[in-house]
Amino acid sequence: MDYKEILLQKIEDKSASIGIIGLGYVGLPLALEFANKKFNTIGFDIDEKKVPVLMNGESYIKHIPSIKIKAAVDSKHFEATSDFSRLTSCDCIIICVPTPLDHHRQPDLSFIENSGKVVAQYLKKGQLITLESSTYPGTTEEILLPLFKQKSVKCRVKNEDTSTSLGMTINESEDASASLSMTGKENPEWKVGKDFFLAFSPEREDPNNPVYSTSTIPKVVGGVTSACLEIACKLYDQVIVKTVPVSSPRAAEATKLLENIYRSVNIALVNELKMVFERMDIDVWEVIEAAKTKPFGFHAFYPGPGLGGHCIPIDPFYLTWKAREFDVNTKFIELAGEINTYQPYYVVEKSQDELNKYGKSLHGSKVLILGAAYKKNIDDMRESPSLKLIEIFESKGAHVDYSDPLVLKLPITRKYTYEMESVELSIKNLNSYDLTVLATDHDSFNYQLIADNSKLIIDTRNVFERLGIKKPQIFKA
Amino acid sequence: MDYKEILLQKIEDKSASIGIIGLGYVGLPLALEFANKKFNTIGFDIDEKKVPVLMNGESYIKHIPSIKIKAAVDSKHFEATSDFSRLTSCDCIIICVPTPLDHHRQPDLSFIENSGKVVAQYLKKGQLITLESSTYPGTTEEILLPLFKQKSVKCRVKNEDTSTSLGMTINESEDASASLSMTGKENPEWKVGKDFFLAFSPEREDPNNPVYSTSTIPKVVGGVTSACLEIACKLYDQVIVKTVPVSSPRAAEATKLLENIYRSVNIALVNELKMVFERMDIDVWEVIEAAKTKPFGFHAFYPGPGLGGHCIPIDPFYLTWKAREFDVNTKFIELAGEINTYQPYYVVEKSQDELNKYGKSLHGSKVLILGAAYKKNIDDMRESPSLKLIEIFESKGAHVDYSDPLVLKLPITRKYTYEMESVELSIKNLNSYDLTVLATDHDSFNYQLIADNSKLIIDTRNVFERLGIKKPQIFKA
Repeated sequence: MDYKEILLQKIEDKSASIGIIGLGYVGLPLALEFANKKFNTIGFDIDEKKVPVLMNGESYIKHIPSIKIKAAVDSKHFEATSDFSRLTSCDCIIICVPTPLDHHRQPDLSFIENSGKVVAQYLKKGQLITLESSTYPGTTEEILLPLFKQKSVKCRVKNEDTSTSLGMTINESEDASASLSMTGKENPEWKVGKDFFLAFSPEREDPNNPVYSTSTIPKVVGGVTSACLEIACKLYDQVIVKTVPVSSPRAAEATKLLENIYRSVNIALVNELKMVFERMDIDVWEVIEAAKTKPFGFHAFYPGPGLGGHCIPIDPFYLTWKAREFDVNTKFIELAGEINTYQPYYVVEKSQDELNKYGKSLHGSKVLILGAAYKKNIDDMRESPSLKLIEIFESKGAHVDYSDPLVLKLPITRKYTYEMESVELSIKNLNSYDLTVLATDHDSFNYQLIADNSKLIIDTRNVFERLGIKKPQIFKA
Repeated sequence: MDYKEILLQKIEDKSASIGIIGLGYVGLPLALEFANKKFNTIGFDIDEKKVPVLMNGESYIKHIPSIKIKAAVDSKHFEATSDFSRLTSCDCIIICVPTPLDHHRQPDLSFIENSGKVVAQYLKKGQLITLESSTYPGTTEEILLPLFKQKSVKCRVKNEDTSTSLGMTINESEDASASLSMTGKENPEWKVGKDFFLAFSPEREDPNNPVYSTSTIPKVVGGVTSACLEIACKLYDQVIVKTVPVSSPRAAEATKLLENIYRSVNIALVNELKMVFERMDIDVWEVIEAAKTKPFGFHAFYPGPGLGGHCIPIDPFYLTWKAREFDVNTKFIELAGEINTYQPYYVVEKSQDELNKYGKSLHGSKVLILGAAYKKNIDDMRESPSLKLIEIFESKGAHVDYSDPLVLKLPITRKYTYEMESVELSIKNLNSYDLTVLATDHDSFNYQLIADNSKLIIDTRNVFERLGIKKPQIFKA
């Protein structure tokens, strides 16, 4: 029986052990799904602090309940570790690490590269590796595949399989199999699709989506070879409602980018129309609600104070970066970036205009930002526009506080190191600010209290009107 | 009882007579809906040739069956005419005329203006006028309202109501009511919302949509006053599944533009990605199909040889034009225009590249374009990209023919005056062309025959792959 058949069989009878690298918003829920289906699942994370928390049955992500983690740990099907040597005991390795942008909007692939290197270090025959991180088309085959091939060649020359080694120096094994077949002999080992398997399958997590979660969102899979595809689909079929095979990892990588480019561009479009319609004294929110009544051909997006989350503000630029290699531009992505990036500045301008009507400057004003998370009802701070709002308001000399019942203290991010704690929403506190900016429309805010006790409100989410609260001091931006 | 109550009552008991100006893709089906509900309906069109055709119970629009027209005529509830003096006999007048662009992409409002003038000429008290043409925010109140007000002032001074005339010269009546009230007397006449009623309600026709038609698509309505809104909603409620009131004609005008801008931008986005992915050797069609499996947050659009139809290529630029008045730009609309306009040129470039591989130039080649209509299974030629394709191919010295079972002869359009007839798709004919370009994917084409007998095929709709027809001479563009 060959490695492919062995691995398919192990997945089938649930004896395959699963290793998941990166225990964040993507990796942790996925690990819990595998554990729940009685696969022995090991979660790997370089952040050693996460391990005891998880092993103690506790969650560090609000929408993932501790009880799920505790159940998985208690069942003995889930274990967290920072010891990557244990990758050797895994049959299937799924990489779920971040793919941020650097300060010049260039892809930062260091998390994928480092994960690839550590996997290569412990790679053994018959393993499947899949990558889930959103990234540019080509990453799986251009970054990961060479690492694993290189490793396999080194191993073959060095260790257990020396019996079949041809005793010649081999560089990259893409050329290796060619040069070997030129000698008239076949190389049966360490070949992708035969000795190890590699696929790309983009995560489609939507934190706190009330209808869909990890297991109920169909999963696109692209394998480097047809065997890679078959095994990767078989693996995900164990925990995901439906797998969608495509012709290559490249096509799967492009699929995730299309989904997020679509969102980024459409959010930018309504943000632009918000600004255009505002000049014409037309309320973009009313127009969107009316357009939504068209029963076909329209999908509502809403304006806001800027993009947030790990995907939408970032992923599109992975394509932009890669496209340059092919002498083409991605004009829609660039324009969407321009307009979405401008939104927090627009909110500040609008705030300044409204304060100005009272003869007040932002300089010296007290500003309260409501909502720190990037979207409602979660505690996710990744790329939250509230952080940018604080920066811009402070740069204009305002004194800024924030209030968010889900984010009691601002976390340190790659870009911001605020030392701020959430302000309690009391009548006295609200009264003490010159300007209140509603950035995130958490359901748990007491909007009537806010409306009744704020001097001036800039509402970036249209939440007050939606709730039927009308006050002359509420303005949209 | 005032005019509002009278008109509401007449609509309620179906004694209101309906006048519809413009018997095209929008006006004709709407007139048939009113006739079908037993309203006496008069259809007006400046094209006198249409009148006898309709009165003979015949259709000139493929997806509107003659039998429907015959039934309406036979029931005596529908009548077509070019005699606009009969507008005086109508209680409700609905304007459904085209709003094209001129050669410099500026709005051509002449159809609306001329309709407005003729309505003003015959305006009588108690009438409702609604406009359905897609146009920029402000048209109803800036173009139509002054025409009707002017008329009412002239009438009042000149004729039946001289008893209450103040005997003074009044210009525009916006100022009139102010100047009148300054004299301490009220002017009870010819006031919008009281003596006549004006609203905007955008058409949402989607020719040949298998699921939705005129009566089943909710209708957005914006009135100049609340009485205008109430009556217009009441009117449309008689024939449309649901009316959606908004705060102003402006908001209703903006709603239609948003719907079409959304489509134009998203089509342009996939057209751009088609070109970017093509460089990366990724098939955009495969990527779109995969992305479509995401059960939320994604709406599939498809690339093509260019925009067609009366709405998508045109309407967005009405906002662009208007926005300049407010010192703002509509960058997404401009970019979408740029990319969509480029598509037929891209198809020709791709064709040239493929011919070039055989050492052939376009100059002197015989080119067959399949499909003349702008979308599948209809005969609608409005803004069809096939016409542009013919122009570009001919400009490069190709000999061009076309074949379309639904368009047997190319009609004369504002821009093109080709004298061409559809070529029969025989084996011999197909064999005689150097290049076949699939522009419109009508279901009635025999794709296997085309694939088997064409030397080189450029498929702009991915129809061959969708049908499982694979040939080395088929390329996508």
